[in-house]
Amino acid sequence: MTTVAIIGMGLIGTSLGMALRNAEDSRLGSLTVVGYDRDRRSLGAARGRLAIDREARDLADAVRGAQVVVLAVPVLAARDLLREIAPLLAAGTLVTDVCSTKAAIMGWATESLPAGVDFIGGHPMAGSERTGPEAADAALLLGAIYCLCVPASARKESVDLAEALVVASGAKPYYIDPAEHDSYMAAVSHLPFVLSAALVDAASRSSAWREMQPLAATGFRDVTRLASGSAEMHRDICMTNRPALSHWLGQVSAVLDELRAQLAAGDEQAVAAFFAQAHEQREAWLQVRPNMRPGEEAFEGQQPPPRVGLFGRLSERK
Amino acid sequence: MTTVAIIGMGLIGTSLGMALRNAEDSRLGSLTVVGYDRDRRSLGAARGRLAIDREARDLADAVRGAQVVVLAVPVLAARDLLREIAPLLAAGTLVTDVCSTKAAIMGWATESLPAGVDFIGGHPMAGSERTGPEAADAALLLGAIYCLCVPASARKESVDLAEALVVASGAKPYYIDPAEHDSYMAAVSHLPFVLSAALVDAASRSSAWREMQPLAATGFRDVTRLASGSAEMHRDICMTNRPALSHWLGQVSAVLDELRAQLAAGDEQAVAAFFAQAHEQREAWLQVRPNMRPGEEAFEGQQPPPRVGLFGRLSERK
Repeated sequence: MTTVAIIGMGLIGTSLGMALRNAEDSRLGSLTVVGYDRDRRSLGAARGRLAIDREARDLADAVRGAQVVVLAVPVLAARDLLREIAPLLAAGTLVTDVCSTKAAIMGWATESLPAGVDFIGGHPMAGSERTGPEAADAALLLGAIYCLCVPASARKESVDLAEALVVASGAKPYYIDPAEHDSYMAAVSHLPFVLSAALVDAASRSSAWREMQPLAATGFRDVTRLASGSAEMHRDICMTNRPALSHWLGQVSAVLDELRAQLAAGDEQAVAAFFAQAHEQREAWLQVRPNMRPGEEAFEGQQPPPRVGLFGRLSERK
Repeated sequence: MTTVAIIGMGLIGTSLGMALRNAEDSRLGSLTVVGYDRDRRSLGAARGRLAIDREARDLADAVRGAQVVVLAVPVLAARDLLREIAPLLAAGTLVTDVCSTKAAIMGWATESLPAGVDFIGGHPMAGSERTGPEAADAALLLGAIYCLCVPASARKESVDLAEALVVASGAKPYYIDPAEHDSYMAAVSHLPFVLSAALVDAASRSSAWREMQPLAATGFRDVTRLASGSAEMHRDICMTNRPALSHWLGQVSAVLDELRAQLAAGDEQAVAAFFAQAHEQREAWLQVRPNMRPGEEAFEGQQPPPRVGLFGRLSERK
């Protein structure tokens, strides 16, 4: 019997609750999920999505009796939350999070949490540009890599508990150092949403934007999709991963400058090589990456295959 | 009774053939579609997709008796093709194309084509990162904006014919000046695929790329999707739209530099404003853009609605 408190009923918090409540054969035994959100509407919606067994009245009510507390809020909000819950936690509680940067929050946890309370950082590689409990999906984490950052001080029981939680959610545990995590994420996750927003920004600042808008088609839509994500989350990620992100902004600017020089020189072969190289690297990535939902690799650009197994049965139950 | 010759059985040429052969109530009367491709395999595949009534043996066989000749090849290949077909064309023939840049090809057509042969530039706002006749879709052009660039010298009959062809394909004619077209496209179509390729390029050049690959998830996948498109087509577009594209590369670099300065200064409010502005502009764009397939606006991020009407019936026939 394990009680999990999820603080923050957004896309990830609600999806995690839905997945945990439907987990079968979990190492956690029988699970109770308590939810809390300052926004009562979100909390009610999460309850409506069957993501939680109980709505907590406040933070104290949420964490009371919980063996695991999951912070599912933007990372700068998590900093304040760590301070607020610190005096409320019983010794032996495991605190974890789902934030997109890890080094900053690991430091804040060390500063804020009392001895006897372990913090293990978490980050599921799953998301959507859609936000809130309405966009949640019991299968969002299914098959996704779920990064776990374990400080040297963490007890073995806490690590086992964190891993069991990840497995119960349908995701795959992936142990990684926080600095390494943040540096890699800057390239493959943060840089994409920055470029997505930069494209919208550059185009929409133009005096001809009104005339351009009808001509923007599926290519523009896909590359800019991430710009529709939560601006608050994007800000927090950038602010807590500044050196790594700045490095990658420099790298991509260098690539763009190089292309501009090739265009100015009329260097057709260099331009061809640039696109051929990007094409080849992306195709190679599509073949190797394990972070894919079951059956998904065969269906890029098409409809996903029907869900089978547990989540298929869940869908039928709805 | 109209005969249309399509030269180039790639994604767009084959999709156009499929749409035209299934057009109902066309102003073109009964339609015959003749196809040609230097690659006999592509030509056979297009025939297999029912995109053409007849496979031409060579260019002369393709254009003989055709009232309309559609060049559906990358734009630099179209330059050579214009020279090759020029001596083969009967007076009164309309030549058009589907290339992504318009100013260059309009100039080449004027240089190459004989008096009595009109050229009207065309560009349907539809595509996919997938290529070739196998990826073609009779509904690809359905509801898409189809740019038409008409030189002052074109006869009224040619303009009517070009417009009837666009309407028969299911697309929406959109008259535009070639320089304006190229400048707008640089921002909303060419810049997106350049950023997509630049992201793959920057990330994959890293010595840590092997470790990053498993962590790249759906965000990376979507923003880099266009990098999987045809490298040859991307090269040709860049080479024929150099000043406009360079301008937009400069604009987006300025946005990235600005963000880097804000990060260095720790300016949380400016970073927040950047993402909030991009978010707002994209949401506004999603509301107004008319270049959308029927029903698509309600389904972003979800599965497309079932196709109804003509194209639904087509799918059932398969």
